[in-house]
Amino acid sequence: MSLINRIEAALEQHFSRTLSSSAPPRLMEAMRHAVFPGGARIRPQLCMAVAKACGEDDSGLTDAAAVAIELLHCASLVHDDMPCFDDADLRRGRITVHKQFGEPLALLTGDALIIMAYQTLAHSGRLHPMRTVQLLSVISDGVGAPDGIVAGQAWECESRVELGQYQRAKTGALFVAATCAGALAAGVDPAPWRKLGETLGEAYQVADDIRDVMMQADQLGKPAGQDAHHGRPSAAADLGLVGALDYFNALMQTAVDSVPACESRAAMRQLVLSESERLVPPDACELISRQKVSAPGRVSA
Amino acid sequence: MSLINRIEAALEQHFSRTLSSSAPPRLMEAMRHAVFPGGARIRPQLCMAVAKACGEDDSGLTDAAAVAIELLHCASLVHDDMPCFDDADLRRGRITVHKQFGEPLALLTGDALIIMAYQTLAHSGRLHPMRTVQLLSVISDGVGAPDGIVAGQAWECESRVELGQYQRAKTGALFVAATCAGALAAGVDPAPWRKLGETLGEAYQVADDIRDVMMQADQLGKPAGQDAHHGRPSAAADLGLVGALDYFNALMQTAVDSVPACESRAAMRQLVLSESERLVPPDACELISRQKVSAPGRVSA
Repeated sequence: MSLINRIEAALEQHFSRTLSSSAPPRLMEAMRHAVFPGGARIRPQLCMAVAKACGEDDSGLTDAAAVAIELLHCASLVHDDMPCFDDADLRRGRITVHKQFGEPLALLTGDALIIMAYQTLAHSGRLHPMRTVQLLSVISDGVGAPDGIVAGQAWECESRVELGQYQRAKTGALFVAATCAGALAAGVDPAPWRKLGETLGEAYQVADDIRDVMMQADQLGKPAGQDAHHGRPSAAADLGLVGALDYFNALMQTAVDSVPACESRAAMRQLVLSESERLVPPDACELISRQKVSAPGRVSA
Repeated sequence: MSLINRIEAALEQHFSRTLSSSAPPRLMEAMRHAVFPGGARIRPQLCMAVAKACGEDDSGLTDAAAVAIELLHCASLVHDDMPCFDDADLRRGRITVHKQFGEPLALLTGDALIIMAYQTLAHSGRLHPMRTVQLLSVISDGVGAPDGIVAGQAWECESRVELGQYQRAKTGALFVAATCAGALAAGVDPAPWRKLGETLGEAYQVADDIRDVMMQADQLGKPAGQDAHHGRPSAAADLGLVGALDYFNALMQTAVDSVPACESRAAMRQLVLSESERLVPPDACELISRQKVSAPGRVSA
């Protein structure tokens, strides 16, 4: 089974388990709306790919870790789209949760998805309880204070913020959680996998900044130009599009080089490279490069 | 050490651990504002009392479970106070988080407190990983879908709701999590402790309904008359004040009777009785009873 099919099946399975006749029906509907259909599911796929590369021996635990990471990601998107943050109408090409179900249910949907991430871990953690406690730690640290994605969003509420620290928390932390959780689910020391997560996370954020500037809302599936509109730190604003693309390419090379020695190193490197093309498609690279020619003052790294 | 001092010390200890120079300072400040100074801390005290009654042998794990439950409770209060729900200015006699720090940080504060609950469990769970996985399950089920406090709040967004189901989820579920988590932290089967949590949770909700009708905002530490204002289900509205008080007293008797055979059964029963007096003070009972005399049509149970 491909990784994308595997994560969809695991998400479906854990959703069916949570569904109960005693649950408030609109909350359950809003939770599904927030998670299906998904985006690229890159974080859970990364988690699963690392687990396989580490000689996975408890696929249920890998699935639970990957599902938990995706649910936490979806929860952060639901809250991030709300009126007090981005006030976005669109997400993944569909109406956002608060626009469809109202603000109160959107707030609760995010909360319920966060909790569901942990219910999923609890459900699948009994074969390897010590690994599960370690997963609990690594995954929570990717989301909470002081350095997880919630802290990253909170930096938007501070008067001073350093771009690197903001991006490491807002995006990088959950990528680190994804690679480290993959190793932990397989019972392997996560430390060598940290760098891959950090670098991919940063690359992902830079790519997001580039696309936010370059693309239209219908291509993005969400409103464009949000960073400038909200005055948020952005690599594309700091370095210019050409500088941001150079930086992105350098990060992806570092990511490829950082894959530790493992059974399927070649496959892991291929995953990183194809992700690179998905994040900043070749036609966008060409467009930016042409801009470079017409702006000879800028020199690429 | 008294239970109230023990829970305050444990909360302080886990907050110090989370504090880091890399954290966004206003988020950390808002998280502390939401948790200190606290209310009665009844749920974590109940958790600790049950753990002691069950022959506690890992006080760090009990503390972590109690802290997790209190943090999840505080998180739900922060989100519940926000403009899209109660739009409350006061909580525990102080300005609410969103009024002090703005809506974006209030939303993130709730999220970060939920995650911190799990970071706390992860930190203290390594001595007894299997108990920790069970705690993860029981505590999450008290908060998330389908039957936890988030589901309880979500019932407020449904067009039809049954009072019992709503209250079991909104309040009862976290009391059940508190008693069951106390037993689990001590390595004991939680099933016999379930009934105590269910009954206390229901009694607590009924007492809250009574106080919401009877008291002024300065006595409550939060706005009064919120249930009627928001058209929420309420025992005081359904049964009248006299009926609600009778029902409360019957529930507290059931709670006392449901304490399982254990080393400190007498102390546990005393805790329940004193909690009863705290929830509906004797002068309130007297006031309601006088109303009963002047309304002879009503007969007490």
